[in-house]
Amino acid sequence: MKLIFAIVQDEDVRRLMDGLTEKGFSFTRVASTGGFLRSGNTTLMIGVEDEKLDDAIEVIEKKCKTRDRIITSPTPMGGATDIFIPQPVEVSIGGATVFVIDVEKFFRI
Amino acid sequence: MKLIFAIVQDEDVRRLMDGLTEKGFSFTRVASTGGFLRSGNTTLMIGVEDEKLDDAIEVIEKKCKTRDRIITSPTPMGGATDIFIPQPVEVSIGGATVFVIDVEKFFRI
Amino acid sequence: MKLIFAIVQDEDVRRLMDGLTEKGFSFTRVASTGGFLRSGNTTLMIGVEDEKLDDAIEVIEKKCKTRDRIITSPTPMGGATDIFIPQPVEVSIGGATVFVIDVEKFFRI
Ligand code: NI
Ligand code: NI
Ligand code: NI
Repeated sequence: MKLIFAIVQDEDVRRLMDGLTEKGFSFTRVASTGGFLRSGNTTLMIGVEDEKLDDAIEVIEKKCKTRDRIITSPTPMGGATDIFIPQPVEVSIGGATVFVIDVEKFFRI
Repeated sequence: MKLIFAIVQDEDVRRLMDGLTEKGFSFTRVASTGGFLRSGNTTLMIGVEDEKLDDAIEVIEKKCKTRDRIITSPTPMGGATDIFIPQPVEVSIGGATVFVIDVEKFFRI
Repeated sequence: MKLIFAIVQDEDVRRLMDGLTEKGFSFTRVASTGGFLRSGNTTLMIGVEDEKLDDAIEVIEKKCKTRDRIITSPTPMGGATDIFIPQPVEVSIGGATVFVIDVEKFFRI
Protein backbone atom coordinates (compact mmCIF):
# COMPACT_ATOMS: atom_id res chain seq x y z
CA MET A 1 0.00 0.00 0.00
CA LYS A 2 1.17 3.52 -0.77
CA LEU A 3 -0.07 6.87 0.40
CA ILE A 4 0.22 9.68 -2.12
CA PHE A 5 0.31 13.29 -0.99
CA ALA A 6 -0.57 15.32 -4.06
CA ILE A 7 -0.49 19.09 -3.68
CA VAL A 8 -2.46 20.49 -6.60
CA GLN A 9 -3.81 23.84 -7.65
CA ASP A 10 -7.35 24.58 -6.51
CA GLU A 11 -8.31 24.97 -10.15
CA ASP A 12 -7.48 21.30 -10.86
CA VAL A 13 -8.92 19.67 -7.73
CA ARG A 14 -12.35 18.93 -9.12
CA ARG A 15 -10.94 17.42 -12.35
CA LEU A 16 -8.47 15.32 -10.38
CA MET A 17 -11.05 14.05 -7.88
CA ASP A 18 -13.38 13.10 -10.72
CA GLY A 19 -10.57 11.31 -12.53
CA LEU A 20 -9.52 9.40 -9.41
CA THR A 21 -13.10 8.39 -8.60
CA GLU A 22 -13.65 7.14 -12.15
CA LYS A 23 -10.65 4.84 -11.78
CA GLY A 24 -11.81 3.64 -8.37
CA PHE A 25 -9.23 5.41 -6.21
CA SER A 26 -10.06 6.55 -2.68
CA PHE A 27 -8.78 9.81 -1.27
CA THR A 28 -9.39 12.53 1.24
CA ARG A 29 -8.97 16.22 0.73
CA VAL A 30 -7.05 18.48 3.08
CA ALA A 31 -7.16 22.26 2.94
CA SER A 32 -3.69 23.63 2.37
CA THR A 33 -2.23 26.96 1.37
CA GLY A 34 0.81 28.49 -0.21
CA GLY A 35 4.28 27.13 -0.48
CA PHE A 36 4.80 24.46 -3.12
CA LEU A 37 2.54 26.10 -5.67
CA ARG A 38 2.11 29.77 -6.25
CA SER A 39 -1.66 30.17 -5.94
CA GLY A 40 -4.28 28.45 -3.75
CA ASN A 41 -3.72 24.75 -3.44
CA THR A 42 -5.24 21.63 -1.97
CA THR A 43 -3.60 18.47 -0.71
CA LEU A 44 -5.17 15.14 -1.64
CA MET A 45 -4.20 12.04 0.33
CA ILE A 46 -4.69 9.09 -1.99
CA GLY A 47 -4.41 5.50 -0.77
CA VAL A 48 -3.35 3.05 -3.50
CA GLU A 49 -2.41 -0.60 -3.79
CA ASP A 50 1.23 -1.01 -4.84
CA GLU A 51 0.28 -2.41 -8.24
CA LYS A 52 -2.03 0.52 -8.99
CA LEU A 53 0.48 3.26 -8.15
CA ASP A 54 1.39 3.92 -11.77
CA ASP A 55 -2.28 4.21 -12.73
CA ALA A 56 -2.86 6.77 -9.99
CA ILE A 57 0.19 8.79 -11.00
CA GLU A 58 -1.03 8.75 -14.60
CA VAL A 59 -4.35 10.26 -13.51
CA ILE A 60 -2.54 13.01 -11.58
CA GLU A 61 -0.26 13.78 -14.54
CA LYS A 62 -3.18 13.92 -16.93
CA LYS A 63 -5.44 16.10 -14.81
CA CYS A 64 -2.88 18.49 -13.34
CA LYS A 65 -0.26 18.90 -16.00
CA THR A 66 1.13 22.38 -16.43
CA ARG A 67 -0.32 24.08 -19.46
CA ASP A 68 -0.34 27.55 -20.90
CA ARG A 69 -3.45 29.61 -21.09
CA ILE A 70 -4.05 32.84 -22.93
CA ILE A 71 -5.78 35.36 -20.73
CA THR A 72 -6.76 38.87 -21.64
CA SER A 73 -5.11 41.22 -19.21
CA PRO A 74 -5.33 45.02 -19.12
CA THR A 75 -1.87 46.26 -20.04
CA PRO A 76 -0.66 49.84 -19.65
CA MET A 77 -0.21 51.49 -23.04
CA GLY A 78 3.36 52.48 -23.70
CA GLY A 79 4.04 56.04 -22.62
CA ALA A 80 0.70 56.90 -21.06
CA THR A 81 0.69 54.74 -17.93
CA ASP A 82 -2.91 55.47 -17.00
CA ILE A 83 -4.36 54.01 -20.21
CA PHE A 84 -4.84 50.26 -20.15
CA ILE A 85 -5.46 48.17 -23.26
CA PRO A 86 -6.67 44.54 -23.01
CA GLN A 87 -3.82 42.36 -24.29
CA PRO A 88 -3.62 38.58 -24.62
CA VAL A 89 -1.06 37.26 -22.10
CA GLU A 90 0.17 33.69 -21.79
CA VAL A 91 0.15 32.34 -18.21
CA SER A 92 1.16 28.94 -16.93
CA ILE A 93 -1.45 27.07 -14.88
CA GLY A 94 -1.72 23.65 -13.29
CA GLY A 95 1.16 21.64 -11.96
CA ALA A 96 1.42 19.42 -8.90
CA THR A 97 3.93 18.37 -6.26
CA VAL A 98 3.64 14.68 -5.47
CA PHE A 99 5.11 12.58 -2.64
CA VAL A 100 4.66 8.80 -2.55
CA ILE A 101 5.06 7.24 0.91
CA ASP A 102 5.18 3.55 1.76
CA VAL A 103 2.41 2.44 4.08
CA GLU A 104 3.36 -0.12 6.72
CA LYS A 105 -0.12 -1.03 7.75
CA PHE A 106 -3.49 -0.16 6.26
CA PHE A 107 -6.97 -1.01 7.39
CA ARG A 108 -10.57 0.04 7.27
CA ILE A 109 -12.93 -0.44 10.15
CA MET B 1 8.09 5.71 15.95
CA LYS B 2 5.03 5.49 13.74
CA LEU B 3 2.74 8.15 12.38
CA ILE B 4 -0.90 7.15 12.04
CA PHE B 5 -3.18 8.96 9.62
CA ALA B 6 -6.70 8.13 10.75
CA ILE B 7 -9.52 9.51 8.63
CA VAL B 8 -12.64 9.32 10.76
CA GLN B 9 -16.19 10.57 10.59
CA ASP B 10 -16.79 13.96 12.20
CA GLU B 11 -19.29 12.30 14.48
CA ASP B 12 -16.59 10.13 16.05
CA VAL B 13 -13.77 12.67 16.35
CA ARG B 14 -14.55 13.84 19.87
CA ARG B 15 -14.90 10.26 21.18
CA LEU B 16 -11.65 9.25 19.50
CA MET B 17 -9.69 12.27 20.74
CA ASP B 18 -10.92 11.65 24.29
CA GLY B 19 -9.98 7.98 24.05
CA LEU B 20 -6.50 8.78 22.73
CA THR B 21 -5.89 11.41 25.39
CA GLU B 22 -6.95 9.02 28.16
CA LYS B 23 -4.34 6.53 26.95
CA GLY B 24 -1.66 9.22 26.71
CA PHE B 25 -1.42 9.47 22.91
CA SER B 26 -0.52 12.74 21.21
CA PHE B 27 -2.15 13.84 18.00
CA THR B 28 -3.06 16.77 15.84
CA ARG B 29 -6.27 17.31 13.95
CA VAL B 30 -6.43 18.28 10.30
CA ALA B 31 -9.59 19.42 8.56
CA SER B 32 -10.39 17.10 5.68
CA THR B 33 -13.40 16.49 3.48
CA GLY B 34 -14.98 13.87 1.29
CA GLY B 35 -13.38 10.92 -0.35
CA PHE B 36 -12.64 7.96 1.88
CA LEU B 37 -15.80 8.32 3.92
CA ARG B 38 -19.17 9.43 2.69
CA SER B 39 -19.98 12.28 5.05
CA GLY B 40 -17.85 14.96 6.73
CA ASN B 41 -14.57 13.62 8.01
CA THR B 42 -11.50 14.65 9.93
CA THR B 43 -7.94 13.40 9.72
CA LEU B 44 -6.03 12.80 12.93
CA MET B 45 -2.25 12.50 12.82
CA ILE B 46 -1.25 10.37 15.77
CA GLY B 47 2.41 9.88 16.74
CA VAL B 48 3.06 6.58 18.56
CA GLU B 49 6.03 4.61 19.85
CA ASP B 50 6.44 1.33 17.98
CA GLU B 51 5.50 -0.74 21.01
CA LYS B 52 2.29 1.21 21.57
CA LEU B 53 0.99 0.94 18.00
CA ASP B 54 -1.41 -1.90 18.79
CA ASP B 55 -2.84 0.04 21.73
CA ALA B 56 -3.49 3.04 19.54
CA ILE B 57 -5.15 0.94 16.85
CA GLU B 58 -7.33 -0.65 19.51
CA VAL B 59 -8.55 2.80 20.59
CA ILE B 60 -9.39 3.71 17.00
CA GLU B 61 -11.25 0.45 16.43
CA LYS B 62 -13.23 0.85 19.62
CA LYS B 63 -14.19 4.49 19.12
CA CYS B 64 -14.87 4.48 15.37
CA LYS B 65 -16.24 1.05 14.60
CA THR B 66 -19.04 0.94 12.08
CA ARG B 67 -22.39 0.45 13.79
CA ASP B 68 -26.01 0.60 12.74
CA ARG B 69 -28.34 3.24 14.01
CA ILE B 70 -32.11 3.42 13.67
CA ILE B 71 -33.20 6.85 12.54
CA THR B 72 -36.73 8.01 11.83
CA SER B 73 -36.91 9.23 8.29
CA PRO B 74 -39.94 10.62 6.43
CA THR B 75 -40.77 8.05 3.75
CA PRO B 76 -43.20 8.63 0.87
CA MET B 77 -46.38 6.56 1.33
CA GLY B 78 -46.89 4.02 -1.47
CA GLY B 79 -49.00 5.47 -4.26
CA ALA B 80 -49.42 9.02 -3.01
CA THR B 81 -45.93 10.46 -3.43
CA ASP B 82 -46.65 13.71 -1.61
CA ILE B 83 -47.60 12.06 1.66
CA PHE B 84 -44.64 11.22 3.89
CA ILE B 85 -44.86 8.92 6.91
CA PRO B 86 -42.06 8.76 9.51
CA GLN B 87 -40.48 5.30 9.24
CA PRO B 88 -37.62 3.77 11.21
CA VAL B 89 -34.64 3.31 8.88
CA GLU B 90 -31.36 1.58 9.67
CA VAL B 91 -28.25 3.55 8.64
CA SER B 92 -24.62 2.64 9.02
CA ILE B 93 -22.43 5.19 10.83
CA GLY B 94 -18.81 5.34 11.96
CA GLY B 95 -15.92 3.66 10.24
CA ALA B 96 -12.36 4.84 9.67
CA THR B 97 -9.59 4.56 7.10
CA VAL B 98 -6.21 4.14 8.74
CA PHE B 99 -2.67 4.40 7.35
CA VAL B 100 0.37 3.59 9.51
CA ILE B 101 3.63 5.15 8.30
CA ASP B 102 7.12 4.49 9.62
CA VAL B 103 8.83 7.58 11.01
CA GLU B 104 12.53 7.89 10.29
CA LYS B 105 13.22 10.66 12.75
CA PHE B 106 11.08 12.19 15.45
CA PHE B 107 11.76 15.03 17.81
CA ARG B 108 10.21 17.70 19.92
CA ILE B 109 11.79 21.06 20.46
CA MET C 1 13.80 12.71 -0.51
CA LYS C 2 12.20 13.24 2.89
CA LEU C 3 8.87 14.70 3.87
CA ILE C 4 8.83 16.59 7.15
CA PHE C 5 5.61 17.09 9.05
CA ALA C 6 6.28 19.95 11.43
CA ILE C 7 3.47 20.87 13.81
CA VAL C 8 4.25 24.33 15.09
CA GLN C 9 2.50 26.99 17.12
CA ASP C 10 0.54 29.53 15.08
CA GLU C 11 2.70 32.23 16.58
CA ASP C 12 5.84 30.79 14.96
CA VAL C 13 4.44 29.90 11.52
CA ARG C 14 5.31 33.14 9.77
CA ARG C 15 8.88 33.12 11.13
CA LEU C 16 9.34 29.49 10.15
CA MET C 17 7.94 29.96 6.64
CA ASP C 18 10.20 32.97 6.09
CA GLY C 19 13.21 31.02 7.36
CA LEU C 20 12.45 28.04 5.12
CA THR C 21 11.90 30.23 2.06
CA GLU C 22 15.20 32.05 2.65
CA LYS C 23 17.02 28.72 2.62
CA GLY C 24 15.20 27.59 -0.52
CA PHE C 25 12.92 24.96 1.03
CA SER C 26 9.48 24.22 -0.40
CA PHE C 27 6.50 23.51 1.81
CA THR C 28 2.76 23.59 2.04
CA ARG C 29 0.72 24.65 5.00
CA VAL C 30 -2.14 22.62 6.42
CA ALA C 31 -4.62 23.95 8.96
CA SER C 32 -4.50 21.86 12.10
CA THR C 33 -5.76 22.21 15.64
CA GLY C 34 -5.08 21.00 19.15
CA GLY C 35 -3.34 17.88 20.26
CA PHE C 36 0.44 17.94 20.10
CA LEU C 37 0.72 21.54 21.20
CA ARG C 38 -1.44 23.31 23.70
CA SER C 39 -2.61 26.33 21.72
CA GLY C 40 -3.49 26.86 18.04
CA ASN C 41 -1.10 25.12 15.71
CA THR C 42 -0.32 24.66 12.05
CA THR C 43 1.20 21.73 10.21
CA LEU C 44 3.83 22.42 7.57
CA MET C 45 4.68 19.70 5.07
CA ILE C 46 8.24 20.34 3.96
CA GLY C 47 9.85 18.39 1.11
CA VAL C 48 13.64 18.13 1.38
CA GLU C 49 16.48 16.39 -0.38
CA ASP C 50 18.18 13.83 1.89
CA GLU C 51 21.38 15.87 2.08
CA LYS C 52 19.52 19.00 3.12
CA LEU C 53 17.54 17.41 5.95
CA ASP C 54 19.84 18.67 8.69
CA ASP C 55 19.65 22.21 7.31
CA ALA C 56 15.86 22.11 7.35
CA ILE C 57 15.78 20.77 10.90
CA GLU C 58 18.16 23.53 11.95
CA VAL C 59 15.75 26.14 10.59
CA ILE C 60 12.85 24.58 12.50
CA GLU C 61 14.85 24.43 15.72
CA LYS C 62 15.94 28.03 15.37
CA LYS C 63 12.55 29.47 14.52
CA CYS C 64 10.34 27.41 16.84
CA LYS C 65 12.44 26.75 19.89
CA THR C 66 10.65 26.91 23.19
CA ARG C 67 11.40 30.11 25.03
CA ASP C 68 10.05 31.88 28.07
CA ARG C 69 8.17 35.12 27.85
CA ILE C 70 7.16 37.45 30.64
CA ILE C 71 3.54 38.48 30.33
CA THR C 72 1.57 40.69 32.67
CA SER C 73 -1.40 38.76 33.91
CA PRO C 74 -4.13 39.93 36.33
CA THR C 75 -3.61 37.85 39.48
CA PRO C 76 -6.09 37.65 42.38
CA MET C 77 -4.75 39.42 45.47
CA GLY C 78 -4.25 37.09 48.43
CA GLY C 79 -7.34 36.98 50.63
CA ALA C 80 -9.67 39.21 48.62
CA THR C 81 -10.43 37.03 45.57
CA ASP C 82 -12.24 39.77 43.66
CA ILE C 83 -9.27 42.14 43.54
CA PHE C 84 -6.84 41.46 40.71
CA ILE C 85 -3.38 42.96 40.50
CA PRO C 86 -1.31 42.86 37.27
CA GLN C 87 1.66 40.56 37.93
CA PRO C 88 4.52 39.55 35.66
CA VAL C 89 4.17 35.85 34.87
CA GLU C 90 6.62 33.69 32.95
CA VAL C 91 4.99 31.54 30.25
CA SER C 92 6.59 29.08 27.87
CA ILE C 93 5.88 29.64 24.17
CA GLY C 94 7.05 28.05 20.95
CA GLY C 95 7.98 24.42 20.51
CA ALA C 96 7.32 22.01 17.66
CA THR C 97 6.62 18.35 17.06
CA VAL C 98 8.48 17.02 14.05
CA PHE C 99 8.15 13.79 12.07
CA VAL C 100 10.54 12.93 9.23
CA ILE C 101 9.20 10.41 6.72
CA ASP C 102 11.09 8.75 3.90
CA VAL C 103 9.68 9.50 0.47
CA GLU C 104 9.68 6.61 -1.99
CA LYS C 105 8.94 8.64 -5.06
CA PHE C 106 8.81 12.37 -5.61
CA PHE C 107 7.94 14.37 -8.68
CA ARG C 108 6.68 17.67 -9.92
CA ILE C 109 4.53 18.00 -12.97
NI1 NI D 1 2.85 -1.36 0.64
NI1 NI E 1 10.05 3.77 14.26
NI1 NI F 1 14.81 9.67 -0.12
